[in-house]
Amino acid sequence: MKKQMNDFVEKVITFLGFLWRAVWKVGREDPRRVIHSLKVGTALTLVSLLYLMEPLFKGTGENAMWAVMTVVVVLEFTAGATLSKGLNRGLGTLLAGSLAFFIEYISDASGSIFQAVFVGAAVFLIGSAATYMRFFPLIKKNYDYGVLIFLLTFNLITVSSYRVENVLKIARDRFYTIVIGCGICLLMSLLVFPNWSGEDLHNSTIFKLESLAQCVESCVNEYFGTAELEATKYNSSEDPIYEGYKTVLDSKSIDETLALQASWEPRYSRCCHRYPWQQYIKVGATLRQFGYSVVALRGCLQTEIQTPRPIRALFKDSCIRLGKEVSKVLKELSDSIRNNHHFSPGVLSDQIQEALQDLNSAIKSQPRLFLGSKYSQTAKIVQESAVHLEEKHEGDSGVLSPSTEANSATVLGLKTRSTSGEQPKEGEQKVLRPQLSKIASTSLEFSEALPFAAFASLLVEMVAKLDHVIEEVEELGRMAHFKEFRDGDEIV
Amino acid sequence: MKKQMNDFVEKVITFLGFLWRAVWKVGREDPRRVIHSLKVGTALTLVSLLYLMEPLFKGTGENAMWAVMTVVVVLEFTAGATLSKGLNRGLGTLLAGSLAFFIEYISDASGSIFQAVFVGAAVFLIGSAATYMRFFPLIKKNYDYGVLIFLLTFNLITVSSYRVENVLKIARDRFYTIVIGCGICLLMSLLVFPNWSGEDLHNSTIFKLESLAQCVESCVNEYFGTAELEATKYNSSEDPIYEGYKTVLDSKSIDETLALQASWEPRYSRCCHRYPWQQYIKVGATLRQFGYSVVALRGCLQTEIQTPRPIRALFKDSCIRLGKEVSKVLKELSDSIRNNHHFSPGVLSDQIQEALQDLNSAIKSQPRLFLGSKYSQTAKIVQESAVHLEEKHEGDSGVLSPSTEANSATVLGLKTRSTSGEQPKEGEQKVLRPQLSKIASTSLEFSEALPFAAFASLLVEMVAKLDHVIEEVEELGRMAHFKEFRDGDEIV
Repeated sequence: MKKQMNDFVEKVITFLGFLWRAVWKVGREDPRRVIHSLKVGTALTLVSLLYLMEPLFKGTGENAMWAVMTVVVVLEFTAGATLSKGLNRGLGTLLAGSLAFFIEYISDASGSIFQAVFVGAAVFLIGSAATYMRFFPLIKKNYDYGVLIFLLTFNLITVSSYRVENVLKIARDRFYTIVIGCGICLLMSLLVFPNWSGEDLHNSTIFKLESLAQCVESCVNEYFGTAELEATKYNSSEDPIYEGYKTVLDSKSIDETLALQASWEPRYSRCCHRYPWQQYIKVGATLRQFGYSVVALRGCLQTEIQTPRPIRALFKDSCIRLGKEVSKVLKELSDSIRNNHHFSPGVLSDQIQEALQDLNSAIKSQPRLFLGSKYSQTAKIVQESAVHLEEKHEGDSGVLSPSTEANSATVLGLKTRSTSGEQPKEGEQKVLRPQLSKIASTSLEFSEALPFAAFASLLVEMVAKLDHVIEEVEELGRMAHFKEFRDGDEIV
Repeated sequence: MKKQMNDFVEKVITFLGFLWRAVWKVGREDPRRVIHSLKVGTALTLVSLLYLMEPLFKGTGENAMWAVMTVVVVLEFTAGATLSKGLNRGLGTLLAGSLAFFIEYISDASGSIFQAVFVGAAVFLIGSAATYMRFFPLIKKNYDYGVLIFLLTFNLITVSSYRVENVLKIARDRFYTIVIGCGICLLMSLLVFPNWSGEDLHNSTIFKLESLAQCVESCVNEYFGTAELEATKYNSSEDPIYEGYKTVLDSKSIDETLALQASWEPRYSRCCHRYPWQQYIKVGATLRQFGYSVVALRGCLQTEIQTPRPIRALFKDSCIRLGKEVSKVLKELSDSIRNNHHFSPGVLSDQIQEALQDLNSAIKSQPRLFLGSKYSQTAKIVQESAVHLEEKHEGDSGVLSPSTEANSATVLGLKTRSTSGEQPKEGEQKVLRPQLSKIASTSLEFSEALPFAAFASLLVEMVAKLDHVIEEVEELGRMAHFKEFRDGDEIV
């Protein structure tokens, strides 16, 4: 008997320990959750005072219930979500009230049976129409809750008006208490330890840039790592690389919700402009595109047959350097967003250019892997194609014309390191991408290390996508009026 | 004056036309939306009868309002969502009612001031605790709405109990009306033109498989297409290929919502087993992984420098064949899911094997592109590595041991077509993946056409990922007790 008792007590203690750890974990992950819970508790207690305190109750009466309902339903985790819901609720109630009184005004003159039929028909029509409206993408995105509340209020008022005489007074009182409820919610969410959706979006964008930077570096390091590659399952959940890009790839719907909520938030800023939340979504989209390349790069680590290590080792330093540079650019972008200042585009593209040239010459420096112009016929085809593409680029941008000759030389792998040393002089960030692709095709002119070729080409493709990311972050900086890049930071 | 009038009328007509087209478009996209709207209208009218008809009103009284509210809030587009909300609402109300009465029972004995303080404290504590609970992932996922309703009901009852005497009666009446409301909702959503979340999930999985099939085929065709590649922006929204994989890549959150709702749905099935909705999520995940490869393959179409067309043309037929085979497999998988019957794994892997061998020999048949064992030292390294990997595989699966010799020969590109013709005899689907990778590295042993090398390696990588998709669909078939594959369909 005593033993059973002890067993039971032990089980209860184990369970309580487990519960406590779960509770603690949720709170430690984001301490704002604890604060938010206390805020909701406080708001509910405040709104209950309407009912509990005699003088306040005299003012509102039974309708205080509506204030309680409003607080429960409207008070959300972030200020943006609360504002969006509160305004939707207010607007929906107001519109529904007006329409309901209009209908009541029409139906009131007639007899009881006719009124019942009329009310029924109105409920059916408005109910169907409002539900149908909720399928419109624009309304679904911004005003779904408002339409729901509209429908709710409209039905309540229309239906009760059939029985109750002074509906107008009831509705007015109810509206007041809803306003009180919304007011308490806004007070709590905007003034007491506010959580901003915009801030979350901002931080998650920074976090995504940083995890991608981490990912790229680990991928490249793992590829050339000395440790034997383990045949991990391709979507193992304990893998840090997978964790890194998963956050980025799955971010779409969260980002969109946050941006939508953020667009309701009042945002103090120096120039009183609207903060460009939509641009964060665009940055997120390019980051996802970049993430797809990381996934493909990751795939190279996991194919069963690899380029033998001795061959890979030849390109280790230059690849790792390129990986580091890409990672550095991503970190610089994340710092730029974090500190709200522009980055220096020159420094970024110069160093990446150098790393690419480095990889290029590393590949060329291996004569037994490099084929050069051995097959003159093919070389001619390549040259023709290159000139053709040059012409096309020239037509597109008009920037590249002076270097056409030099570039087709690059394509053919005939260009020496000294010539390529002059390239960063062109300076224009816009020309980064076409050059990258050229270097890519140059880099690929070797024969044995072909699984490595796919790796290198994906690495270079990734640099091309990095360019899109840079563009969008730059645009973000422009739209959000980031601080100017300080000359002190620039590497002269 | 008349002209102004005409202008105005014209504008109104234009606006009405625009509105009508918008309304028409939403309905044409999914006619179930129209039906759902009419269902909501009908349900609301039905529930209004509680108020409008004298005998019914005598039974429910003012509380009929709660039935109206329930219908507005609970009736959702799909049966699963309605059930989930309805059950959550019922459960939340019941729990909250019990707890509220317990608290009232304790506080009732004491004086008015103490009771007010006690009620206030209870509201604060329960409010904070319930809000905190909503952050638990498990609760957030399944019972978020239930906790909300619990909080709402608890507050309403606790607070009103301070003023009103017969709270128990009110609460009981209210509960009845909520049950009536839920009942009408369930009736409408389960019996009148029901929309099943599970069916949506099923169809969207089929649709995703089909769009990927389309994508792969268009990608390969475009790569070898005669028309000049246009420099489209990489995320242009009018691009059919982009549209195809975008649906797949963005499907995560929609799929999870549908699967969650589907898990609430009662599902008639032959063996009375639970339908494996979670497996659909897994299939979706592998499809996204496959989609990343399609994105990378797509990247090959858009790099500025391409392998010259004459070289590409050499591999056109075999690549297009492989693309067609991949596409065919995806279509077969989608048919298998659509018709709930198993597919024949043998046919799938055999034909893909053949297509891969075809590509392999196409690449070998070009002596000027193929280097073979010219560099004996490197060849030796490759051989060592291959043997090493073979040993590793042998340890992993124990399936490959008899073919070790033959396979390392494949890696070295020394295997003839006739030997490879014997391979499909092994039959085992599980060995598809390692073989694929081997063929990949074989296929890549050529020098000039290196941007093409990346394309081919991605194509082969894609086949490896296809294997994961096949596995998951097979598992789905097993879990959902698909019909046996009919022998008549098999190609002997």
